[in-house]
Amino acid sequence: MNEILELIKQLDGVGNKAAKKIFFELLTSSQKRETFQKVIDTISKDFKICERCYFYKKNNLCAFCDDKTREQNLICVVSYLSDAQKILDNNFKGLVHVLNGELNFNKNIKPENLKIDKLFDRINKEIEVLLALNLTFEGEVTAGYLASELKNRVKKVSRIARGIPLGGVIDYIDDETLLDAIQNRKSLKKKEQE
Amino acid sequence: MNEILELIKQLDGVGNKAAKKIFFELLTSSQKRETFQKVIDTISKDFKICERCYFYKKNNLCAFCDDKTREQNLICVVSYLSDAQKILDNNFKGLVHVLNGELNFNKNIKPENLKIDKLFDRINKEIEVLLALNLTFEGEVTAGYLASELKNRVKKVSRIARGIPLGGVIDYIDDETLLDAIQNRKSLKKKEQE
Repeated sequence: MNEILELIKQLDGVGNKAAKKIFFELLTSSQKRETFQKVIDTISKDFKICERCYFYKKNNLCAFCDDKTREQNLICVVSYLSDAQKILDNNFKGLVHVLNGELNFNKNIKPENLKIDKLFDRINKEIEVLLALNLTFEGEVTAGYLASELKNRVKKVSRIARGIPLGGVIDYIDDETLLDAIQNRKSLKKKEQE
Repeated sequence: MNEILELIKQLDGVGNKAAKKIFFELLTSSQKRETFQKVIDTISKDFKICERCYFYKKNNLCAFCDDKTREQNLICVVSYLSDAQKILDNNFKGLVHVLNGELNFNKNIKPENLKIDKLFDRINKEIEVLLALNLTFEGEVTAGYLASELKNRVKKVSRIARGIPLGGVIDYIDDETLLDAIQNRKSLKKKEQE
């Protein structure tokens, strides 16, 4: 049984106890095995990652890049795909760019390990980049790096307003606070960008 | 996306937030999709339910029923498969019988919905039945029902000693306390069985 528990534990945040629970549930119910089979098949068939913004495409359409009604000169940068989903659900009108992580020198996650080059490929002097990164240490480091790299290449770098306590994680913020923070975004002063 | 979240939420204890997390994880990593595919395939191929005790068989062997060194006259009755696994891991020397649930009249779970008839098929006047049910309301109701049905059909009905606080759930008890409770099991007095 242990080998199969090790496999299940590869899911983020699933420990020994949760892995056993999932194992026994799938073992006891063939219907749940079929359900999970369908989850995997559906994801493989209908979903893929957008190679422009790194959000997902469903049936080959990206909800950001393939929506021509969106403001093309505003790109909201987030760390994770789930953050982009949250941005989408909150009626943000611009585009998005998913970094797929945060800079972390302890874990040896450097700029080249994130989709930062791909962000640079998308920007020009017409573009406002809105940084919507977690207000954690790694999020702040990433925001600082991006602000300094972007300042001379774009029209404006802004960040979502801090209505969020320091140490907060975007994915857990309630929708209203997040919407507020997007609407009240503020331009970074040149000295903050140094 | 919502249809797929509904599928994922069919797993016990997985809410909206956890379902999104699993979805994004499987979406982002084809390696994790393959891992989960392997989990499902392995369970379907190597595991099935034992039709005698309702524990699982791995490669067609039940760790209880197919182990002839076990005490054949002692059957430990548990509510869930995970409880039986815990009993197995604690070096219990007898057999086991999984009821697949607890009596619950609010949820309309009656004796015929559990593997109680299958337990009656296995017993005789040589057998000691050890009730290792949760000390919750439903567990106690189930234990009371079984004690009264079993008392004239078996040699002895016992229950694991209460080293466990009322309201406790067996699956979360530490191993030592559980082992203790099995060793100190006590015979039910006739009047308790009425």
